[in-house]
Amino acid sequence: MELIDQTLLPGEFKVISCRTAEDVWDAIKVLRVRGAPAIGVAAAMGVVVAVQNVPDDEKAVLEAAARAADYLATSRPTAVNLFWALDRMRRTAERCRGSGGRAVKEALLAEATAIRDSDAAMCRAIGDHGQHLVKEGCGVLTHCNAGSLAAAEYGTALAPLYRAQELGRRFRVYVDETRPLLQGARLTMWELMRAGIDCTLICDNMAAAVMRQGKVDLVLVGADRIAANGDTANKIGTYGVAVLARHHGVPLYVAAPSSTFDLRLESGDEIPIEERGAEEVTHGFGRRTAPAGAKVYCPAFDVTPAELIAGIITERGLIQPVDRENIGRVLR
Amino acid sequence: MELIDQTLLPGEFKVISCRTAEDVWDAIKVLRVRGAPAIGVAAAMGVVVAVQNVPDDEKAVLEAAARAADYLATSRPTAVNLFWALDRMRRTAERCRGSGGRAVKEALLAEATAIRDSDAAMCRAIGDHGQHLVKEGCGVLTHCNAGSLAAAEYGTALAPLYRAQELGRRFRVYVDETRPLLQGARLTMWELMRAGIDCTLICDNMAAAVMRQGKVDLVLVGADRIAANGDTANKIGTYGVAVLARHHGVPLYVAAPSSTFDLRLESGDEIPIEERGAEEVTHGFGRRTAPAGAKVYCPAFDVTPAELIAGIITERGLIQPVDRENIGRVLR
Repeated sequence: MELIDQTLLPGEFKVISCRTAEDVWDAIKVLRVRGAPAIGVAAAMGVVVAVQNVPDDEKAVLEAAARAADYLATSRPTAVNLFWALDRMRRTAERCRGSGGRAVKEALLAEATAIRDSDAAMCRAIGDHGQHLVKEGCGVLTHCNAGSLAAAEYGTALAPLYRAQELGRRFRVYVDETRPLLQGARLTMWELMRAGIDCTLICDNMAAAVMRQGKVDLVLVGADRIAANGDTANKIGTYGVAVLARHHGVPLYVAAPSSTFDLRLESGDEIPIEERGAEEVTHGFGRRTAPAGAKVYCPAFDVTPAELIAGIITERGLIQPVDRENIGRVLR
Repeated sequence: MELIDQTLLPGEFKVISCRTAEDVWDAIKVLRVRGAPAIGVAAAMGVVVAVQNVPDDEKAVLEAAARAADYLATSRPTAVNLFWALDRMRRTAERCRGSGGRAVKEALLAEATAIRDSDAAMCRAIGDHGQHLVKEGCGVLTHCNAGSLAAAEYGTALAPLYRAQELGRRFRVYVDETRPLLQGARLTMWELMRAGIDCTLICDNMAAAVMRQGKVDLVLVGADRIAANGDTANKIGTYGVAVLARHHGVPLYVAAPSSTFDLRLESGDEIPIEERGAEEVTHGFGRRTAPAGAKVYCPAFDVTPAELIAGIITERGLIQPVDRENIGRVLR
């Protein structure tokens, strides 16, 4: 499996090869590949990679696939797409039991490819369902990266922007740099500039001032996991942006494929939040920026309560207002 | 004049010498010295530095002092203490007209020293007036650095913390790293850790999550300029923190000496906001973190409207609630 090493962007565009499940686990863990949908696709392909060099013995292939799925599920805890994609791979392997090792391998490759292709189709559908929100001349703010680097093709949160651009609309995008790992500065700016969209980089703490100046008409963000009531886990800082948007009367929309919903969870309180290492904050830019021994709190995600979300744009349609009933209706 | 080069903290503790007005102008411009009160003291001392090598001819000394004051006033546009301190130096020079060049020089040195000493006394008084807000076991969030590195001795926003600590109270402090220049990570963490205060560094975009977890009972920030109605310009991001604090029912207090008020300004709309270079965002720490050619918006300050401020702690007392009448009464 080949993937863009996103940790090197925007300085270097490098495609790396993953030849083992360990390579894939590592790529997910250190964020060479990131973004909930892309993690799902990478993990599914990781199961394919894990069985490719196993002899065509069915028992050995099934065992390797199950082991790889369990192992890859430990790479990151929050994005539900990861577990969803691995469950599809596990079920595919079990469905082929009795048809031989070679057939299991082929079925796994077909399933991973289908996950990737349906991801691209989902992104296009999200763009179609959300493009009307991006009006001529409007200002949009986005946080982190939920674009084509986070998924297949259009991405999720950026899909409505790409569709609106195709439809000839002009608009401005403010991009939160998104500390600590700067996915906004490094990735969203990179892909929006490549697409020729008018974009301006700001530090996360400048979003409030930009909103107060009346420059933001719409906030678009992605999601890592959405509970049954619409509470949404996304990149740390999203919740703050949502509070600011509410204060300034700006609607915030979440864009995410239906695989991002985890309907077993009643509310966002049940979503596990990954905490990452202090170095991401204290050594963010290749140089120590805090005193040695500084205590750090570094959650990777936060939860935005449903009442702060104007709507959720999925490939199956727009969920608005965001409540349990509308979520059930659109996802059914 | 000697000062700590704060651009090198926390990695290196280096004291530099300023031998000319240009050295001082440069130190203020590139933030070797920063924090509104400290800028005022440095600028006043800069006038002393500017006249020290001028012959004791009164006309020459007065001209050099006036020229230095005008020049140093161009170093940064937002902090009113800069202009306030330089006005004091100008008036001092004019008051000595007729007493000879040597006497003018001595008066300028005495005035700059008085500004420094009264700054230290003001910080202690701010600590006294604000310490009761820092209750046993509470959580405090601060943004940027308004501590002893930004002023003399206690600092302003941190003065109530230092006083509360002296009084034996225990509390926790969350420190926003404060992009783009990381004054929180580099300076506030450095001085709080040195003082033995329990402090935790977070990225600016984590403040909302920390507040939602109920860990913050009080927000303390400094100020660069305060209008007659209480609207307060401070480090970019302060306004966002104020909106978040209001949303979570947490009171935000501004701590600032009375010299920070600019009563000629009716409201915060009239406060000029300095915009700084794109490189502060795109090349934060010796490494490019955004694509080449990325458009950047980088305001150094924002304005927090008075209605989001629970109180203003000055050396003359606590202004609460924050309105024109109370400001007039306490400052009178």
